[in-house]
Amino acid sequence: MPHIDLQNGMPGILGPMLFSPHTAAPMNLLANALMQTDEGLSRGERELIATYVSSENDCFFCQTIHGAIASAYLGDEDWSLIRDVKNDYAETGLSGKMKALLAIAGSVQKGGKNVTPEQVEKARENGADDRQIHDTVLIAAAFCMFNRYVDGLATTAPTDPEIYRNRAKKVISGGYSASDGTY
Amino acid sequence: MPHIDLQNGMPGILGPMLFSPHTAAPMNLLANALMQTDEGLSRGERELIATYVSSENDCFFCQTIHGAIASAYLGDEDWSLIRDVKNDYAETGLSGKMKALLAIAGSVQKGGKNVTPEQVEKARENGADDRQIHDTVLIAAAFCMFNRYVDGLATTAPTDPEIYRNRAKKVISGGYSASDGTY
Repeated sequence: MPHIDLQNGMPGILGPMLFSPHTAAPMNLLANALMQTDEGLSRGERELIATYVSSENDCFFCQTIHGAIASAYLGDEDWSLIRDVKNDYAETGLSGKMKALLAIAGSVQKGGKNVTPEQVEKARENGADDRQIHDTVLIAAAFCMFNRYVDGLATTAPTDPEIYRNRAKKVISGGYSASDGTY
Repeated sequence: MPHIDLQNGMPGILGPMLFSPHTAAPMNLLANALMQTDEGLSRGERELIATYVSSENDCFFCQTIHGAIASAYLGDEDWSLIRDVKNDYAETGLSGKMKALLAIAGSVQKGGKNVTPEQVEKARENGADDRQIHDTVLIAAAFCMFNRYVDGLATTAPTDPEIYRNRAKKVISGGYSASDGTY
């Protein structure tokens, strides 16, 4: 049960976003600006970073919805790539660049000062540019906010994967929004 | 030295915000929606929560600028209240409600699931309503993002307190913005 009366029965981040639309609006604008672009990093890569950080933060709702979105973009129909990335991304078939960026994201999750010059250098050696490194840091930072908003208010989360697959389709076609009040 | 070439010499969060204006815009909208209102919690109380969380995240730039803003709102001219709150807020003269909300904020800083029903109940007993608890959680969550953005890119920070006092005046009169490119 959520810590406060959200005045709606919506799961995950939609509950508090509908409770507080004036703060939800810029949060969704940020999510769209940061996640809904293929410039530098693809949408699938961005969602993969978000999923990994949400998993490290142990946020069930966020890691499942963003995992579903990442899987849809990346053609990972059985979610096996997502599972392997959460388990140990270094052992996956991801590119050296993505592994280096996930290492940076993992450091940001623990706290910004954990990012080392060596991690950044390794990302560069594997082809990452300043924009990609910047976006990785901001995606990881932003999901440290979204995850805490979801779990800090003890929101509810469905367990049926189909619900997340359907929601993923809506996000992919229409972007991030809480304004229609449906899931 | 920042981890990436921010293409400007601005300190703290202004460096990456000017590097990436399309993501900075919604971040500043969020900061204004969340921090620049006295509804429920006052602007000074909101900035105090932001300062405390930034201190727990060991983000020098954020704890100093938001500490300066909180101090200006709260009439804490020598920053002694800010120092005491960072050191041990339970021993300050703050209200029971603010102490209970700072406890919630401190739990959010560690991770959303650390917030307990008992902490929320204590805040209620001390007069906090759902809106104030919600805003406390979101302020704490948002500063876990801002702090990581600042430190995850290894931005620079001035040490002269006067610089923060002057910036505080600008934020108080004009809101949060990186668009003028000055500090």
